[in-house]
Amino acid sequence: MHDVIRLDVKENIHSENDHIADHVRQHLSEDGILVVNVMGAPGVGKTTTLKNIFPHLRKAKPYVIEGDIESDIDTVDLQNMGFDTYQINTFGACHLDAPLIHDAIHKMDFDKEGILFIENIGNLVCPAEFSIGEHIKMLISTVTEGSDKPYKYPLAFEKADIILINKCDLLPYVDFDEDFFMKGVRAQNKDVPVFKVSGKTGEGYREVAAWLESRNPD
Amino acid sequence: MHDVIRLDVKENIHSENDHIADHVRQHLSEDGILVVNVMGAPGVGKTTTLKNIFPHLRKAKPYVIEGDIESDIDTVDLQNMGFDTYQINTFGACHLDAPLIHDAIHKMDFDKEGILFIENIGNLVCPAEFSIGEHIKMLISTVTEGSDKPYKYPLAFEKADIILINKCDLLPYVDFDEDFFMKGVRAQNKDVPVFKVSGKTGEGYREVAAWLESRNPD
Repeated sequence: MHDVIRLDVKENIHSENDHIADHVRQHLSEDGILVVNVMGAPGVGKTTTLKNIFPHLRKAKPYVIEGDIESDIDTVDLQNMGFDTYQINTFGACHLDAPLIHDAIHKMDFDKEGILFIENIGNLVCPAEFSIGEHIKMLISTVTEGSDKPYKYPLAFEKADIILINKCDLLPYVDFDEDFFMKGVRAQNKDVPVFKVSGKTGEGYREVAAWLESRNPD
Repeated sequence: MHDVIRLDVKENIHSENDHIADHVRQHLSEDGILVVNVMGAPGVGKTTTLKNIFPHLRKAKPYVIEGDIESDIDTVDLQNMGFDTYQINTFGACHLDAPLIHDAIHKMDFDKEGILFIENIGNLVCPAEFSIGEHIKMLISTVTEGSDKPYKYPLAFEKADIILINKCDLLPYVDFDEDFFMKGVRAQNKDVPVFKVSGKTGEGYREVAAWLESRNPD
């Protein structure tokens, strides 16, 4: 009995969320804004990735929504660098959802075509379950997390439209089995492009930026 | 209206869970088993930590419950090393809960006094909200995750009874500001003991094992 009620509530939350996500996606598509949902565990370098991608964008203007449970450390950092950044604090909630993004975009100005990067809560589980109106799900993994992550957290890898392997500068110092990692990725997701990057050396971001700019927000 | 129903369900889930958690804790206390809830983000080295603590336990026999969304990679690994390990797969759920542990302990044999290490789902958010019958919450953080984690994920740091900073062998290669990290820890948790460890060099685990063996499951 209890389980039925829980399932009902969960289904209602998901269908409400998807409805609002569709509305967000359509609204931003009409404005020529590509929406990228940036996902990954805590500390994989989500904000560092954004900072490294932005200088390589040739046409698109970057916009950012920062999702954090608490704190605005990354927003202050990005605003100091001159980027349009809007902070969402969830105060406990483990993922962003479409209603939060819907509220945020109505408080932001999109003055030209560009890419809206939405940095989700650091969490390799829950964000993968919720659409937030994105065109692209970008998953960031790292060589320091270990090569078994696609096997242990399959949904995030299955749903990703692009995967970055960050912190490649640390490869000489950690045990990261790239073949095992890629075998796990391919078991979930046959065609997803995978880019090796390093926030420390800047390696790989030019290619990521070019891939993003080749996408269409329609 | 919807929000009230959701809140109700959430409160019911928490109070049911806490009730079963108390039962689990009492049951294992009577058997002389200390229960340690091992929490941390994906890839912080939870299983590696267990492997490094076990050889330093002088009196207590280690028992393990491995929590994973999918896969039994770590359980097979620990069983091959001769440790009593029981696998829980949540198939999507982002944290362990007390009913799952209640079922598991009734399928395990505790043949002498010891320590039951329960490796929670890799997630720095949700596990901190749910008691699973533990006496001790052990939080594992790493120098590769960055020093801002206590500010961004305060609940896990607030609730921790012991904190390990893992991967200290990588300190020369990453930007980890230990003073900033510790300031964030102390803002949430005045007295929690913090141990620097390395799964690669074995540094620090003797002290962690001694601290655990000084605790009482009463």
